[in-house]
Amino acid sequence: MKKNSAKSRSASRFAYDGLDRVIHERARLSVLTSLITHPLGLVFGELKQLCGLTDGNLNRHLQVLEESKLVSISKGLGGHRPKTHCRITALGRKRYIEYLGVLEQVILDADCAVKPGSPARSGHDPANA
Amino acid sequence: MKKNSAKSRSASRFAYDGLDRVIHERARLSVLTSLITHPLGLVFGELKQLCGLTDGNLNRHLQVLEESKLVSISKGLGGHRPKTHCRITALGRKRYIEYLGVLEQVILDADCAVKPGSPARSGHDPANA
Repeated sequence: MKKNSAKSRSASRFAYDGLDRVIHERARLSVLTSLITHPLGLVFGELKQLCGLTDGNLNRHLQVLEESKLVSISKGLGGHRPKTHCRITALGRKRYIEYLGVLEQVILDADCAVKPGSPARSGHDPANA
Repeated sequence: MKKNSAKSRSASRFAYDGLDRVIHERARLSVLTSLITHPLGLVFGELKQLCGLTDGNLNRHLQVLEESKLVSISKGLGGHRPKTHCRITALGRKRYIEYLGVLEQVILDADCAVKPGSPARSGHDPANA
């Protein structure tokens, strides 16, 4: 049984099951990368600017991330109006780091095909030679 | 004007506009990575196995990739029944390599926050200290 299971994993070696859809979506990857590089958190306006998102889009993606417990959101007073403060949670960091490991695997897998000077990187396909 | 444009790009530095949705979708990233590492192409059954996809899912994603001219599909006879043969196109290689550059940027951006021994990687958040 173990042998079959290992064979099945090896057969699907480009499946990348670890590319969690909650994190992989471009805008949410953008939000999480902004937040993991700012461990003290960011206010809504800063996050919006760093990710190049509209208010509506950022709100929608923050809701998904909060429901998945990857980001925590708190409201507080900052100056004259309430400020929304966003932080990545411990679970968010853990899941983001796991996700990053899979991204690194994609790059490693593609590396031999696309490294400088290789047929793929130079646009030459040996199959056409 | 140039200054403002540069400022705007710098402000949205985690936007990752280059994460093309056609390529970024997990199953299609899986298909393209399989194909870029097999420059002679793969038959449908091999690709299905490498990506861990069902017939229906693989067909659907191949259609999107073919419409975007990233993959070429040809039918031919192989043994007793027709075989579908899939190859990444020159445009597909070019776009995949550009996409890969953005993935590498995500990893670089996150690296200082998640490298071994850093607060984020070890699960310790200085903001909670």
